[in-house]
Amino acid sequence: MASESGKLWGGRFVGTVDPIMEKFNSSITYDRHLWEVDVQGSKAYSRGLEKAGLLTKAEVDQIHHGLDKVAEEWAQDTFKLNPNDEDIHTANERRLKELIGETAGKLHTGRSRNDQVVTDLRLWMRQNCWTLSALLWGLIRTMVDRAEAERDILFPGYTHLQRAQPIRWSHWILSGAIAGNPLGVDRELLRAELNFGAITLNSMDATSERDFVAEFLFWASLCMTHLSRMAEDLILYSTKEFSFVQLSDAYSTGSSLMPQKKNPDSLELIRSKAGRVFGRCAGLLMTLKGLPSTYNKDLQEDKEAVFEVSDTMSAVLQVATGIISTLQIHPENMARALSPDMLATDLAYYLVRKGMPFRQAHEASGKAVFMAETKGVALNQLSLQELQTISPLFSGDVSHVWDYGHSVEQYAALGGTARSSVDWQISQVRALLRAQQA
Amino acid sequence: MASESGKLWGGRFVGTVDPIMEKFNSSITYDRHLWEVDVQGSKAYSRGLEKAGLLTKAEVDQIHHGLDKVAEEWAQDTFKLNPNDEDIHTANERRLKELIGETAGKLHTGRSRNDQVVTDLRLWMRQNCWTLSALLWGLIRTMVDRAEAERDILFPGYTHLQRAQPIRWSHWILSGAIAGNPLGVDRELLRAELNFGAITLNSMDATSERDFVAEFLFWASLCMTHLSRMAEDLILYSTKEFSFVQLSDAYSTGSSLMPQKKNPDSLELIRSKAGRVFGRCAGLLMTLKGLPSTYNKDLQEDKEAVFEVSDTMSAVLQVATGIISTLQIHPENMARALSPDMLATDLAYYLVRKGMPFRQAHEASGKAVFMAETKGVALNQLSLQELQTISPLFSGDVSHVWDYGHSVEQYAALGGTARSSVDWQISQVRALLRAQQA
Amino acid sequence: MASESGKLWGGRFVGTVDPIMEKFNSSITYDRHLWEVDVQGSKAYSRGLEKAGLLTKAEVDQIHHGLDKVAEEWAQDTFKLNPNDEDIHTANERRLKELIGETAGKLHTGRSRNDQVVTDLRLWMRQNCWTLSALLWGLIRTMVDRAEAERDILFPGYTHLQRAQPIRWSHWILSGAIAGNPLGVDRELLRAELNFGAITLNSMDATSERDFVAEFLFWASLCMTHLSRMAEDLILYSTKEFSFVQLSDAYSTGSSLMPQKKNPDSLELIRSKAGRVFGRCAGLLMTLKGLPSTYNKDLQEDKEAVFEVSDTMSAVLQVATGIISTLQIHPENMARALSPDMLATDLAYYLVRKGMPFRQAHEASGKAVFMAETKGVALNQLSLQELQTISPLFSGDVSHVWDYGHSVEQYAALGGTARSSVDWQISQVRALLRAQQA
Amino acid sequence: MASESGKLWGGRFVGTVDPIMEKFNSSITYDRHLWEVDVQGSKAYSRGLEKAGLLTKAEVDQIHHGLDKVAEEWAQDTFKLNPNDEDIHTANERRLKELIGETAGKLHTGRSRNDQVVTDLRLWMRQNCWTLSALLWGLIRTMVDRAEAERDILFPGYTHLQRAQPIRWSHWILSGAIAGNPLGVDRELLRAELNFGAITLNSMDATSERDFVAEFLFWASLCMTHLSRMAEDLILYSTKEFSFVQLSDAYSTGSSLMPQKKNPDSLELIRSKAGRVFGRCAGLLMTLKGLPSTYNKDLQEDKEAVFEVSDTMSAVLQVATGIISTLQIHPENMARALSPDMLATDLAYYLVRKGMPFRQAHEASGKAVFMAETKGVALNQLSLQELQTISPLFSGDVSHVWDYGHSVEQYAALGGTARSSVDWQISQVRALLRAQQA
Repeated sequence: MASESGKLWGGRFVGTVDPIMEKFNSSITYDRHLWEVDVQGSKAYSRGLEKAGLLTKAEVDQIHHGLDKVAEEWAQDTFKLNPNDEDIHTANERRLKELIGETAGKLHTGRSRNDQVVTDLRLWMRQNCWTLSALLWGLIRTMVDRAEAERDILFPGYTHLQRAQPIRWSHWILSGAIAGNPLGVDRELLRAELNFGAITLNSMDATSERDFVAEFLFWASLCMTHLSRMAEDLILYSTKEFSFVQLSDAYSTGSSLMPQKKNPDSLELIRSKAGRVFGRCAGLLMTLKGLPSTYNKDLQEDKEAVFEVSDTMSAVLQVATGIISTLQIHPENMARALSPDMLATDLAYYLVRKGMPFRQAHEASGKAVFMAETKGVALNQLSLQELQTISPLFSGDVSHVWDYGHSVEQYAALGGTARSSVDWQISQVRALLRAQQA
Repeated sequence: MASESGKLWGGRFVGTVDPIMEKFNSSITYDRHLWEVDVQGSKAYSRGLEKAGLLTKAEVDQIHHGLDKVAEEWAQDTFKLNPNDEDIHTANERRLKELIGETAGKLHTGRSRNDQVVTDLRLWMRQNCWTLSALLWGLIRTMVDRAEAERDILFPGYTHLQRAQPIRWSHWILSGAIAGNPLGVDRELLRAELNFGAITLNSMDATSERDFVAEFLFWASLCMTHLSRMAEDLILYSTKEFSFVQLSDAYSTGSSLMPQKKNPDSLELIRSKAGRVFGRCAGLLMTLKGLPSTYNKDLQEDKEAVFEVSDTMSAVLQVATGIISTLQIHPENMARALSPDMLATDLAYYLVRKGMPFRQAHEASGKAVFMAETKGVALNQLSLQELQTISPLFSGDVSHVWDYGHSVEQYAALGGTARSSVDWQISQVRALLRAQQA
Repeated sequence: MASESGKLWGGRFVGTVDPIMEKFNSSITYDRHLWEVDVQGSKAYSRGLEKAGLLTKAEVDQIHHGLDKVAEEWAQDTFKLNPNDEDIHTANERRLKELIGETAGKLHTGRSRNDQVVTDLRLWMRQNCWTLSALLWGLIRTMVDRAEAERDILFPGYTHLQRAQPIRWSHWILSGAIAGNPLGVDRELLRAELNFGAITLNSMDATSERDFVAEFLFWASLCMTHLSRMAEDLILYSTKEFSFVQLSDAYSTGSSLMPQKKNPDSLELIRSKAGRVFGRCAGLLMTLKGLPSTYNKDLQEDKEAVFEVSDTMSAVLQVATGIISTLQIHPENMARALSPDMLATDLAYYLVRKGMPFRQAHEASGKAVFMAETKGVALNQLSLQELQTISPLFSGDVSHVWDYGHSVEQYAALGGTARSSVDWQISQVRALLRAQQA
Repeated sequence: MASESGKLWGGRFVGTVDPIMEKFNSSITYDRHLWEVDVQGSKAYSRGLEKAGLLTKAEVDQIHHGLDKVAEEWAQDTFKLNPNDEDIHTANERRLKELIGETAGKLHTGRSRNDQVVTDLRLWMRQNCWTLSALLWGLIRTMVDRAEAERDILFPGYTHLQRAQPIRWSHWILSGAIAGNPLGVDRELLRAELNFGAITLNSMDATSERDFVAEFLFWASLCMTHLSRMAEDLILYSTKEFSFVQLSDAYSTGSSLMPQKKNPDSLELIRSKAGRVFGRCAGLLMTLKGLPSTYNKDLQEDKEAVFEVSDTMSAVLQVATGIISTLQIHPENMARALSPDMLATDLAYYLVRKGMPFRQAHEASGKAVFMAETKGVALNQLSLQELQTISPLFSGDVSHVWDYGHSVEQYAALGGTARSSVDWQISQVRALLRAQQA
């Protein structure tokens, strides 16, 4: 048999440590993001050691002083990494020892690297979730402001991308703002989890579970799914065929080949990021699947996922806010897209109000649509006589049906598209914004 | 150009409706699960119509009477589906009309199918989440009972699957029970969302967002990830090599080929379901990505995912409860797996208590491990003289280190593996169980 | 300690076998799909045993006769399952023993259940891949037929959903047919793998790897991704705003609420299935991740995934073929959607042909677009004098640029949108169709 | 209404271009990997333009000379990026213009950026797949070398992680090498696709489909799934409980807390990367789902996925090769793990050879296992008389069954664990290695 250190067959590497393994194992290229929280965590831990009688007051002062110096070096970008610094924790401890000597070695008493890693990541996420949350609320605020200012513009509501009924443009905007809202709740959950007010119940579970990471990645995935749908709507609305909105030049790009084009790249990128973010969530869950309990090195995958997703969310939320705040709308095209057949449901309701069961009224209205199509006229151009061949319940007041403004005002239930209902939605979201600021 | 109804080129189908399309479009094969909540929702809606003056009291009574009859037919398995019943809503309405005549047609006034679908699914999930939640709490209760009864059994704690330090067996059990616990919180969230106390803020968003489905699927995925890890541990512990536990025959199977084998199929199935459940979550998010707002038929994918995942979770939770409650443990093998080198950290702490900084103590303990390995003896068989060549701080009281029971008792911090700490964990989980019952 | 069979704490189940575990463990509800290949495999295996001298000729005849009877019962739906038949292999062997007695017991010599499971699944997939492949070729044939017949219809090509340049409608159709084509190659691969001409190289690997399942699920996912994109295009083209195509009634549905609507449900369902199919692929890979080598029960997850995906693909391919073959196009709307600014690239090429470097020409054409926009006229309504203020290279022959038919004919490179190029694409795909039939 | 450039409400950004959008849109941070193939592609394209009469010979020379200079700057790390260089193509063209003036502007004639992007990526992947392929073959070669040298070491084969039958250690190694092998075939496919011998059939499809990216990511995912399983086996085999193998120090790390530990970090990292790589595959498919045809900016997501996965695969394959080539095995522990009950199947075959149907023999052998367990003796310590109470077919020659070496020699079918069969597997893989070198 071969000696332990020797390679047996094949292989590229000769020596005691494979440099590719060292690089593969090292996390310093990305976990340096954690320098600040690592210092913060170590300062807190040293106070704990003092309380437990394992450090004197003088040693704690010495350690804090050294850690402040370490932090200063990071902040000023003068911290020098050694090739042996495999992660941020090792690097900071090595530097601390250079600065204050042997006392540095006491800092690690009773604390495993795995504890340190997970604590640092939780601290970093607490800070970072506040930042993302502020960006999310900024987007929501922009949407509400815009919804309020453009309350009276009507345009087609779609289902299955087929024109359905007239709705307010502001109703559409708020459907996005409100989709953003439950996310805020999730963030609260996360924040609550991260405030360390609660004690981890079980030490085995504490270093090994990554629910807080998985939940963050899923929050981001779901949030991106919503934003991908909003982006899809706006991409459609900015086509020549719809022409409801126009992106500001700040968020469009031209074509290298076709001089006439103006492409909604910003929206397409937002739409695409849903895949990337979800991929990170999928990857983490797959990594976690079937792992033995407690710490395994596999868990190291958590950090790059969190950092990348956090950066992506930050950019997406800012760009989305910019898009919404500079988007130009074309109210005349929106109005032109409304057509009398979108009032067919209102025509059925007209009959319901005259006493016809809805199913019959729906059928009668369908007949009117068919009659208009056959005659090649708009639905509101059928004469009263023609309508009466379908049902004797039609009378002169049917003409009131053909008013888009009147149509939307019918939907005054909470959540609907009537002016009062949209105002209520605005006030609800504003209340949330106020609550979040307090 | 061809006429609309005609096929132009190729294709298998001749006629006005393609039967494969009809089947492809139909959801009745799986959404019949919803019969009960569909009736419940329609009864509530008819009361709403009465309040709005669109139904008389007599009509509401007639409708309720008819719907009760529909429900009775489903309950007694005598409901006859027509080939044209494309979904449960159509089927129930069609039957209602047969039973009570034209009044049935009024029930649909001002309610779209999409509203009905999403309301029914929310109602069904509310019921179903209660059931799953009860099963989850049942599993947790079983784990706590077991942890309490087997509090004093020690075995090796592992990190990286390498033996690390002695821990209590009950500490391991509770690490699983506690991993289950945050899930309970999520369920609360979901329940809160489903209790309809809150009004949907925006009607466009209401029919189109499926956050409640995505969140349920993610909760299930994360829960299964935890269970897959618990299953992995138990599969390992039941190997010949570990021999810490033995599955009851009720949860094992034999081999068709090898007479001596007893396979932990139940645990392997639990581990495998993490993939299936997550696949459903991944599939739904991919389906949602980039959809235009409001209702699109794509959303129909939500139901089969929910039903399948719900069935899987129900089986997994019951089987897991059965496994834990009938699992036989082998305390003698657990004890045999403890070895003095697992006390190397304690040896370092011994030196820390004598005043050595932890980093140096860790190194000294490492030297002792190496010395024992070199001499081919157990770590606790090094003589005091030998230890003193490593550090003069070693003295006669080092013999107290070599006591596993004493070792675990050191970890008395909350969450640790000391008897008092495990007792505290048990009391915490019991408090949650009581709170959940109230 | 408790006795092995006894439950210790909690738990719902009392007895020797937990009925929920039995159901959880059983695969008969879905692996009955395999009845035919299971019989086929067992017949082949018995011939192998005869050759090895482990069965006599008479015994093989007896077994074959019995297996034919088993197959007949399945085919006539008279096979009676016992509660103890946990899978199709057990069921068939149990029935065989009832039919022919003890000789049945010899059939299993030297064959593990795991071998049998994986062989059966491979056989089933071989048959099934042929069926799916035929459906895929049927779709491609329909697309080519249609492309050929509608070769001369022009409409806008889009990038970023912005109108780019005029292209042939048939060019779009073929982009889908060709996307289908590489899939055919994959299928060939799969077929090659499944023809058992090659011997499995390693017995451990043979029962444990599921590459053929993973590759099938990935093929289906990628195929569905293509079809989801084709569906998205057609959904857009059938909106009121585009109005390029109209789905036949056979593949549309109406609204329960809005009488005027005709929804492209068939296309939306196709788009949505990409998520479901991919979810199965994701689930299987997650299940496989980190499994110990050789057989583990986790692998049982493969079959439901394959059966569900196969059913989905079969329906999707047939519905897609139906949609394409009955789709009505509106050439007049397609023509109306062409506008002179889509020829801006041609205008740049005009200048390139006069000697201007492309980058300058692109800029000059961009200026013309801007001038036309500013003056509120179409690009082709700028006068020669106006164009000459941008570049003196413009002369009277610039008028030839404004001809859409002429524009598309420029793209005569292979793969382009010129008539000749589209004809070549048609001939290429027809050659593939012929090759596949041979 | 607001002017186009102005922001309307909220938003952080004032100006004509949002700097965050610019960064969000830019791909230069990662697509600089493509500098070499971008130059290569542009040189080829300029020759195409010459052939088409759009560039003179002198211009082509000028362009090539300029591009060589660009390449030199990249190679020497002296290329200076401008803030406006949004991608590698823009950067290289901008620099070319600085170097050779207006002629640079002609290079882009008739070529869209989207063409350029996709061509560059295909070229890069062609190069890169060769590199990865070489690394993969290197791993396979190491495994075969090792299998050959350690052909005669037996250890337990496991199914369900329960000891099943004795097998050769080399049989296990080859099960991994062979799992690697089909991947080679995929790579061939990919290479064939990338050699540009075939012409893209349809120009719309060419810029818009990313099958070659998706297939690469799936190949990597499936390859990583295999490697995660191999890693899982080796992690288990290196536990104290199994003690079959020991990782070289070059691929292990110690614990910061526990001096006695040696953790298989390298294997855990390999296992974890399966999640990361698959996450990228999942993300790309989700991004592609439902995209309109032709180019959309969403497709920009392809490159980072390819680069990251390629880097990961490269590191994983090298580390895996290093692990296998330096792994120390403990044949004495492997031998000790073999036990007579693993020969229970052989005992059944003994009876089969005496004429008993396998099912009965299996049952008889099971009875012997049970009898031995009851008596507390090893299976081979049952006396002949005891065995004969189970079946009169047992006679003195049953003692030959209890020989592990003899047992494995029975499995001489191709793919089995007999020495001859393992030799054949080695020769098969060596033949593949030779074929791949040619």
